[in-house]
Formats: sequence, structure tokens, C-alpha cells
Amino acid sequence: MPALASVLSRIDTDLDASLERLFALLRIPSISTDPAYRKNCREAAEWLVKDLESMGFSASVRDTKGHPMVVAHHDGATPDAPHVLFYGHYDVQPVDPLDLWQDDPFAPAVKNGAGRKIITGRGAADDKGQLMTFVEACRAWKAETGSLPVKVTILFEGEEESGSPSLKPFLEANADELKADFAMVCDTGMWDAETPAISTALRGLVGDEIKVKAANRDLHSGLYGGAAANPIHILARVLADIHDETGRVTIPGFYDGVEETPADVLATWEKLGRGADTFLSDIGLSIPAGEKGRSVLELTWARPTAEVNGISGGYEGEGFKTVIASEASAKVSFRLVHRQDPVKIRAAFREFVKARIPADCSVSFTEHGSSPAIHLPFDSPLLQKAKAALSDEWPNEAVMIAMGGSIPIVGDFQKMLGMDSLLVGFGLPDDRVHSPNEKYEMSSFHGGQRSWARILDAIAR
Amino acid sequence: MPALASVLSRIDTDLDASLERLFALLRIPSISTDPAYRKNCREAAEWLVKDLESMGFSASVRDTKGHPMVVAHHDGATPDAPHVLFYGHYDVQPVDPLDLWQDDPFAPAVKNGAGRKIITGRGAADDKGQLMTFVEACRAWKAETGSLPVKVTILFEGEEESGSPSLKPFLEANADELKADFAMVCDTGMWDAETPAISTALRGLVGDEIKVKAANRDLHSGLYGGAAANPIHILARVLADIHDETGRVTIPGFYDGVEETPADVLATWEKLGRGADTFLSDIGLSIPAGEKGRSVLELTWARPTAEVNGISGGYEGEGFKTVIASEASAKVSFRLVHRQDPVKIRAAFREFVKARIPADCSVSFTEHGSSPAIHLPFDSPLLQKAKAALSDEWPNEAVMIAMGGSIPIVGDFQKMLGMDSLLVGFGLPDDRVHSPNEKYEMSSFHGGQRSWARILDAIAR
Repeated sequence: MPALASVLSRIDTDLDASLERLFALLRIPSISTDPAYRKNCREAAEWLVKDLESMGFSASVRDTKGHPMVVAHHDGATPDAPHVLFYGHYDVQPVDPLDLWQDDPFAPAVKNGAGRKIITGRGAADDKGQLMTFVEACRAWKAETGSLPVKVTILFEGEEESGSPSLKPFLEANADELKADFAMVCDTGMWDAETPAISTALRGLVGDEIKVKAANRDLHSGLYGGAAANPIHILARVLADIHDETGRVTIPGFYDGVEETPADVLATWEKLGRGADTFLSDIGLSIPAGEKGRSVLELTWARPTAEVNGISGGYEGEGFKTVIASEASAKVSFRLVHRQDPVKIRAAFREFVKARIPADCSVSFTEHGSSPAIHLPFDSPLLQKAKAALSDEWPNEAVMIAMGGSIPIVGDFQKMLGMDSLLVGFGLPDDRVHSPNEKYEMSSFHGGQRSWARILDAIAR
Repeated sequence: MPALASVLSRIDTDLDASLERLFALLRIPSISTDPAYRKNCREAAEWLVKDLESMGFSASVRDTKGHPMVVAHHDGATPDAPHVLFYGHYDVQPVDPLDLWQDDPFAPAVKNGAGRKIITGRGAADDKGQLMTFVEACRAWKAETGSLPVKVTILFEGEEESGSPSLKPFLEANADELKADFAMVCDTGMWDAETPAISTALRGLVGDEIKVKAANRDLHSGLYGGAAANPIHILARVLADIHDETGRVTIPGFYDGVEETPADVLATWEKLGRGADTFLSDIGLSIPAGEKGRSVLELTWARPTAEVNGISGGYEGEGFKTVIASEASAKVSFRLVHRQDPVKIRAAFREFVKARIPADCSVSFTEHGSSPAIHLPFDSPLLQKAKAALSDEWPNEAVMIAMGGSIPIVGDFQKMLGMDSLLVGFGLPDDRVHSPNEKYEMSSFHGGQRSWARILDAIAR
């Protein structure tokens, strides 16, 4: 019997015991954002250290200014085995409003859902259930083969739900210890209950705020209207000019570094069946905005955007005031893909705006964050191995998807430790993460363990 | 000695006594907006009734739901003399911040300004000093000739500084009593201390609020950006489209009913020396906005405008939020001239907006007031007589100016009583009305009395 087969078999027979371990972790109310649960956060970290040590990891609770990190190391079966850093977080979201929960959020249980079993409780999906899929896969490997197919470093954070204030300093201070060949992050979802997914791209972000100033004070629109510059008009013109009639962004150089998505990837996305109808009807819309002739998945996963996130100027209260404002402002963000350069995008945008400001008016800018896109090349061996492993486990072939938003840790691993991240997770869209009655499918927990067992096997080859 | 000459002479010799009367009225703190001064408002009304009765007017205090009106009547010298309605207001603005006043605002005094005498105190210019110029002119006519050259009805209001809530109901209930051949309103200013002015036009106003709705909730711009409609983009496009590159309003039919200002009037305005430099430098600007190739005075006095008075949407607080708002709104107003029809303008604007809303989004509108422009024909005999009378009195010839804003009473007289209004006043731009240290020039008070004496004479002919 090949090693993998016995490992998978061990996972199956050990499922009830693995569930008991997850329950023990879920019972600890490690709410990171509420100081009242500070001790519980440490308790969760200590529980994890103890569990990892029981499997032969050298593990420790590492203090930070906030909640502690858990760091653990285990050698691979051979000295030249790949080295992976696995990331998860043991902290959970607050549980209010408590009266909307059907059960105590910290008394986990297995219940029968619509023809399937679910694990209920705060953190079941986000992220305790997910991180334990990896831990249990390691346990099974260790139990069956006495070792792990790859060298594993584990990093569990306790502040993911409260903005990760300690993460960057910790990565910086411990870069040598944490640096691996690549990272594996288990905090995302499947496409559906039968289709595993790998998130291969995260869009980057540039945020900027414009303030247009015209007259030195608010003016009476009767006395000055028609002769004095109106900053809202100027701002509206700037914002309207950002997109052309086909929905393309008109800022010079904006598309530099943007690649066309390969036809086979587009075809895969097409097959996912999440077209404009499904995507938009949920939010009360029916016509894709943005660049014409592209699917909604391509638009949100693989195309850059410019969005005005807020606008303000003049009289905004009840009723009416015939005022010409002295200034007006807008918050604008750009989602970036591929190799678009945040620094160049910001500079080009600001030039674009300045060119539209009359000579007697002025504009000022405030920077609001900047991060490049994260993009795992579709032909990367890591990706192909993980895809094959996942496809072996689940009814449907694994799909490579993207995320319109960002997961900061992935950018930090890239920037601070020079590592790509493999984003694999087993959550489902209806897991109610951050909401009352959070759950995790038993099939996610079980299949997740088996999936990681397969992935560890695949990447060791 | 012709009647007018002796009347003017009487005004000169009676100046000190007229000043005492004005002081008596200025001492009454008739602040209409503050309930604490309710009795003082009535006191001012009663003082005026008594003064008018002393000159032979049949005068009375007329109760309203708010502060009382003063209505007074006096026959003309002949039964076929014209009948004029004179309007002024006896209420004044609040005086805070009191510590910025050099003197007690209700202890009027004559002081020496820069080589000239000024009358200080709240209401000196707005409007007690101005309304008394007319009363004193009548007194002099009565004293010298035993009668008045025209039939005079006087209407003094006590709520002008607090929105005139009782005015329309009062005009409606007393239309027969108040209707005259035309109205004379003394609440405006001179062009400068040597140049009297008649305001011949007031722009009308249409106010409208647009609310664009897109998705059924606020969206995460990472997850939906690029595929979901952004109402701020739609609104910016609508607002940017309102003006073309030459500053003209592009709404179909917008310029229907707009007349070109006669060349000789434009030439007069040109001579006033208030070009773009002077007009704009005060407010920190230098380039006229709006329609190209027109002077700032023409732009603000004789051209219609579209102005966005307020805009709001998405995240407007500190920092940044990557949200796509579900709705965005703007307040837009149009200043109207000549025969532009407010009803048609509003309808055309709404069609213009609707044509720019994507089929899966919606727009709603809220009406915020509507009034047509007021326009006294340049060749009206009333205007020509008043202009000649004013030109006889002052060093410079009277100029016909316009006002970019509106004076509601003029529209009410037009609409409810079918009367044109002659707008003549003697305030100066530096009178600090509504501010601490309000003043009225002694030359305004004296020359104003003489001016009305001349105008009454002129229009009786």
C-alpha cells in the first residue's frame, strides 16, 4: 500500500477523534478584538502548541504586543524536501448578536443539515476548522510514515480578525525562521461543495483622495453662479473622464503590465456558470458595468478597475442651499492586476486630475494605501501539482479562480519573505463566517484533511 | 418755487429731525427670529403706525400668526394720480457676536467715517434707514404741499429676516387692499456712493435633487468592482454632461425664452468697471467660469446657469473604505432669466438625467422650489422716470443693474398682485448688513430722502 493511501485511510478512521480535537479548540472563545477574551486567545495558542508538540513539532507560543503567535517546525522526510510555511489564524470574530444564534457559539456540535452533516460554532469555518484540516493531515502522515513528506513551518496568528497589528513586525523580526519555499494559506473557499478551488490571483489596490479647491469661501450661487468656478463641476468632469464609453480606464499608461487572461482559463471560468445573470441578480442589477465584452468573472478577477468610493461637496443636508462650494472631494481606488505598478498608477492618476483643474483652482491629494496584485503564474509547477491533488480528491476537477479583493498576508509573504502563496481552502459561500450560526461542512473538514494529505504528497515529488 | 424744489429744501432743513426719528426706530431691538424680542417687534410696528398717522396716513398694526404687518394708506393729490405700494421691513437681524460691535447695536449714533458721516446701529441700513428715506420723503411732500403727488399704500413687514412666513397669506387675504399700479421696494443698494442704481432684473430659480440608485446594498469594491454599476460614476457623468466645453448648458430647450441683452445695456455695464479681475479676485479666482465670451456681470445678471450645489455618495468620513455605494445624490439649481419657464426647465432636466441612467439603475427626484425670473423691460416708462429722477439727484447718472439672486417679495407682488416692482435703494456694499457694526451712510439717508421725493414727483407726471 503506497504511503498516501494509508494516510488517507488513517484520516478516515481517525475522523471522530479529529472532530473531538477541533471541538476542544472551538470551545475556547478566542475573540481577538475584545480585551475581555485576552486570556482565551493565549489559551487557544497554548492548546495548539501542545497539540503540535504531541505530533513531534517543535512548537512555541511567541509573545507580541498583542495576542501571541504560534510557530512550529517539523523536518521533512528527506533533507532536500521542499519547505512550506502554513498560515492560519486561531482567533475568531465576536458573536453578537447572541440572540440570533440557535446554539451557544462556543459549544460546538455536529448537526444534520439538508442531507449533510455540519459542524456548528464560532470559528468552525473561519479559521479553526480550516487550519485543523492541515494539522490533521500532518498528524496522519506522521502516524503512518513516522515523518512528513515536506519540511513544514506553521504560523498561526491570533489577530487576523482585528487587523493583524503584530504580523508585519513579527515577520520582519523572524524572517529567517519563517522563510520557506512557498506559503500555504487556508482561509479561502471552494467553488461549490463538489468543486475545489485554488485562488491564483488577488487584485492589488491604490487608494487616493482628491480635493478640488476653487473660491476662497463658499459663495452664494445667485450672486456668483455663472462666473465663479464650481469645484463640484470640475470634480464631476474629472471623474466622468476616467472611463470611456466602452468602460475602459482612460488614464495614460493605466493598462501597462496588464496581461490578457489565457483563453483556456477564460473557458474554465465560463464553465463555472456564474455569468452576469447570477452574479448581478443577487445585488439587484442586470447589466455588467465596466469594460464591455468581458465576463463578470474576468472583470472582477482579472481586470483592473477605477472606482469612486465616496464623493462629497457643498450642501448635503436636508432641503436646499444655493451655495457654490469652495471645495469638493472624492475617494478613488484602483484595483490592480498582474504587473501594474501602484506607484506609476498613482502618479498617472494625479497627472490626469491636474490636467483637468482650471489654472485658478487647485487640487490636493491624500494617499490611502497601495499594494501590487498577487499573481501565481497559471503554469507554476506548485499550482499544477496542487490542482491535480485536489482534482483527485473531489468529484469535480479543481478550478483556478481569482479574488477581486486582497488578503494582506499574501502580499506580506511576497514582499517581506519573497514567497508565493498557495491559497487553498474548503469553506463554502453559505458558511456564515462573521455572522451568527457559523458552520463548516463535515465534508469540508474531512475532505480538507484528505486534500492536504494529497497536496503534501504531490509537492514532495 | 416749484413744489419739488421746496420739498427738497424741506428735506435738507429737516435732516436732523429726521435723524432723531430714525434713531427712535433704531433703538427698538426688533429682532424677528428670536422669540425674546417679540414685544419689541410689535413696538416697532406701533411706532411706525403712530409716525405715519402723524403725517395723515390711515395706518394700522395688522396681526398675523407671526409678527404684525404695518399697512397705511394716503390718497394722492389728484384722483387719477398713480397708486404705488411701498414695501420695507422693520425687523432686523440678530446682533451676535455682540463682542465684535464697537458700540451698542441698539444705541444708534452718527460717527465720522473716512471723511464722511455714518449712522451706526443694527438696522441702520437693513432696512430701517432705507424705509425711513421713503417715509421722510412723504413727510416733506405733505408738509410743503399738504398732500402726496401719488396715492401711496405702505406695507411694512416684520419677518423679512426670518423667512417671511406670514407674507404670502397676508398678500392673499388683503390683495384688493394692497394692489396698486406698481410696487416700490427699498431694500437694495447703489452701485457706489456717487452712482444710484435700479435693479431691473432678478434671476429665477429651479432647485432639484437627484438620487441615483444602483445595487440593492453597498458593495465591496474588491468583490464587485468592475462588474457592478457605481452610482457615483453615473452621477458624475450626468453632471459633467450638463455643460459643454464653451460653458453652455446642454439640456435641450434650456435657452428657450432667453434674450440677448441689448448692446447699449452691455455697454453701460462695461463702463461700471467691474470686470473679471475685480469681481473674481475678491473670491480668490481669476478666470470666469460659465459661458465663454461674456462679461462676469452679464454672466451673473443676464444669463441662466446650472450649478451643482451639493453632492454626496459612498464613504465620506476620514480614511478610506473600498465600497461601491448603492446610491449617490446631488442638489442642482438653475438660475433663470427673462421668459425661461421653470416648469419646462425642470422637466427637460429630468429627461436629460433619465436618458443617462442605465436600464438596471434608477433615479428619483425631489423638487426644491421654483420661481421665474423677474424682468422690468428696459424701456418701461416707470423705469425711465425713476432713472431720470435719480440721475438728477446724484453726481453720476443712474445705472440699471440686475441681481443674480432673487428677492422673493418681488416675485410675490408679480404673481399674487400682478404688479411690477421698482427696486431702488441706497445701501452700499460696505454697510455690513447682517454683520456686526452695521452702518448706513448719512449721504444715503439724506440723498435717499431726496431721491424718493424726486421719484414721487416724476411718476406723478
